[in-house]
Amino acid sequence: MDLSIDDFYSIKSWYNILSDLPEPLPPPKEPGDGISRIKFMQKVMSRTCFSQESSSKSRIPIPDEVMKLHVQAGRPRPLYRARRLEKYLKLKSVKLYYKREDLSPTGSHKVNTAIAQAFFAWKERKTKLITETGAGQWGTALSYAAKLLGLECVVFWVRAVYKWKPDRSTLMKLYGATVHPSPSDQTETGRKLLKENMDHPGSLGIAVSEGLEYAEKREESVYCLGSVLNHVLTHQTIIGLEAMKQFESIDESPDLMIGCLGGGSNFGGFILPFAGEVLRKKRTCEFLAAQSMAAPNLVKGQYRYDFADVSEHTPLLKMYTLGHSVEMPAIKADGLRYHAAAPIISLLRHYGIVKARAYPIDENEIFEAARIFLKTEGWLAAPESSYAIRAAVDAAQEFEKRKENKVIAFNISGHGFLDLPAYKEKLFPS
Amino acid sequence: MDLSIDDFYSIKSWYNILSDLPEPLPPPKEPGDGISRIKFMQKVMSRTCFSQESSSKSRIPIPDEVMKLHVQAGRPRPLYRARRLEKYLKLKSVKLYYKREDLSPTGSHKVNTAIAQAFFAWKERKTKLITETGAGQWGTALSYAAKLLGLECVVFWVRAVYKWKPDRSTLMKLYGATVHPSPSDQTETGRKLLKENMDHPGSLGIAVSEGLEYAEKREESVYCLGSVLNHVLTHQTIIGLEAMKQFESIDESPDLMIGCLGGGSNFGGFILPFAGEVLRKKRTCEFLAAQSMAAPNLVKGQYRYDFADVSEHTPLLKMYTLGHSVEMPAIKADGLRYHAAAPIISLLRHYGIVKARAYPIDENEIFEAARIFLKTEGWLAAPESSYAIRAAVDAAQEFEKRKENKVIAFNISGHGFLDLPAYKEKLFPS
Repeated sequence: MDLSIDDFYSIKSWYNILSDLPEPLPPPKEPGDGISRIKFMQKVMSRTCFSQESSSKSRIPIPDEVMKLHVQAGRPRPLYRARRLEKYLKLKSVKLYYKREDLSPTGSHKVNTAIAQAFFAWKERKTKLITETGAGQWGTALSYAAKLLGLECVVFWVRAVYKWKPDRSTLMKLYGATVHPSPSDQTETGRKLLKENMDHPGSLGIAVSEGLEYAEKREESVYCLGSVLNHVLTHQTIIGLEAMKQFESIDESPDLMIGCLGGGSNFGGFILPFAGEVLRKKRTCEFLAAQSMAAPNLVKGQYRYDFADVSEHTPLLKMYTLGHSVEMPAIKADGLRYHAAAPIISLLRHYGIVKARAYPIDENEIFEAARIFLKTEGWLAAPESSYAIRAAVDAAQEFEKRKENKVIAFNISGHGFLDLPAYKEKLFPS
Repeated sequence: MDLSIDDFYSIKSWYNILSDLPEPLPPPKEPGDGISRIKFMQKVMSRTCFSQESSSKSRIPIPDEVMKLHVQAGRPRPLYRARRLEKYLKLKSVKLYYKREDLSPTGSHKVNTAIAQAFFAWKERKTKLITETGAGQWGTALSYAAKLLGLECVVFWVRAVYKWKPDRSTLMKLYGATVHPSPSDQTETGRKLLKENMDHPGSLGIAVSEGLEYAEKREESVYCLGSVLNHVLTHQTIIGLEAMKQFESIDESPDLMIGCLGGGSNFGGFILPFAGEVLRKKRTCEFLAAQSMAAPNLVKGQYRYDFADVSEHTPLLKMYTLGHSVEMPAIKADGLRYHAAAPIISLLRHYGIVKARAYPIDENEIFEAARIFLKTEGWLAAPESSYAIRAAVDAAQEFEKRKENKVIAFNISGHGFLDLPAYKEKLFPS
């Protein structure tokens, strides 16, 4: 669907679901070991983001400059009717729509919050953005946003992943970021580990520890997080707010919205504006998170307080969690590999507003779903997004069998141009 | 600039420049060895494309179905003002605009003609599209278009390139194409060469020969060409026709249009509608082709009859040519590596309407131009497109020095997600 730039600019604020939730979001807690994680986070994070984290305003104004940066990054992004996919699936009673977050400059939805976080840091006169990255999408998005604002960006990247994704680190470096394979020689944490093993493969926990240590020691820095936290999901609501306008423009309304979910930022961004209206009894709609059995936090996790990171630097958050030190198998869709779901999504799951389904680890059917999408609609989706496609196809077929007239919307969170080796390995093994 | 779907659909025909040229385009000629190349081409090509090749109508209607396929492929594509690049270059009197052909499903402008050719083949009840590919962009685009129309696609791909671009062949295969490294065992030409050397590296000439032999022996096939010929450039005018509407919507008009040029299809598609108005004295505008010194056909070539292919299967066309058997050094921007410029572009060059500039082979400044574009505008351009960016930056600085108020428009013919190894090699050698 067409959305004009003027219509896009009429979105003047992010939607913050906190005040519409069925109960107040359980607040972050200290683990009780005498070290205040909340104070620590307050110290290393952007002030604005930290305060947005607990804001009760349902609308958080988007600075004009951020709206312009979104336009620079190609927003608004289209919502398409998947007519060819419908035809392929012989759907008569079900309509399919998809949102194109893959059109972002770095190839995923992560730029949406990266732009906002970079802007707030710049506004607070910080000059350096620090982060860690696992799959690499977040590090790339933050590198991009930092460059737009003229800030430095330092990315600590799990060494094992850094090594097999040279293209993504080239992209971060092209954007001017400094990329350190983690463990690195930049921090005490890193140096200690390198002394033991010069070729230490690293882990997300180590990368987080390094990033936080690095940021804490530098006044000019802020530490940026790419998922899970409330402010991140709030920034991502630009996806759903656009989609809502797009659906209104064609007088259509989704009955089921689907996104893939690791930590929950693309899923949350897509569904929250709609979920808020469901909570305010203004619409009916169901929400389905598509997960991998490698990290089925919403499906098999417990709803309890847990750390958001392996290295126990964050406060405890109430989430559906598999345990912050759980071992998760390596998968192609490594953006889905996270032990817990964002607190907001977890609460919605707890109340039955969000449902979840976990698919076998990188099973061929997942890649087949991406292939069917490519062959019908023509677009190469990221392996993560292919979980959402798969879930949409399954749901469509179930509705169709029951002859239910339904509208399904799913989010293509990213493109797969840098994931072609994974597609080759799964679909064309030689 | 915004262009609504309705505005896009109001483009009802391609622009064919033939009747507006300062002299009739010199017709194709037979080499005089007793074998009619024209009859051969007529036999293997789509009837519609063959007749479009010599059409004198200035408007060739675009079938509604083709327009719909363009929309499926994400058209219209934006035209952006490069405000951040202008600021970086400290431009005060010069404005820069760029067109986003990189947003195509396969990552380049090649889909524009692929869609049209696939449609006409389908309409003529053919079931197989045959082609050769060098850099791989054309093969990918045709694979995509074939799939949209439910046709088979067979690509003969120079073995040496096929081997070092596994990602691109994965993409072709995902679209369902059959990709044969050439020389292959599918043709007599190929089998003969493989007998001599099982690991023959192949060449574009061999791939063309194989494709033509394969197509000639199969009634259900058409052979498709991705550049140089008149009908290909005509199909590509969708780029310029859109850009013209976009410029009109902001009451702006380019003084200089720039594209990279190998054979001339993205350059031609971008400029021809504007060049036609220049020829009809309806506007003033200059046109600059950015080339590589690896294949400076417009800069150093002779304007004479030559074969369009190394294997001498095509008729002779009057073109600026380096000679159809010239050796061209390998370059990163291998889409620019072609011995001659399209007859239409060559004639316009001959009359001084198109100018050309050739840059040193993959010099760092070319990659730097892409990096500057990435760091300011945020988008990763293909190495080919970076020649256009470089030429636009140079032209802007020259105008600025002379304080001339000028509007420059350049075309981003493709994205660089599959070219990151090339960027790494040039900009971050380890």
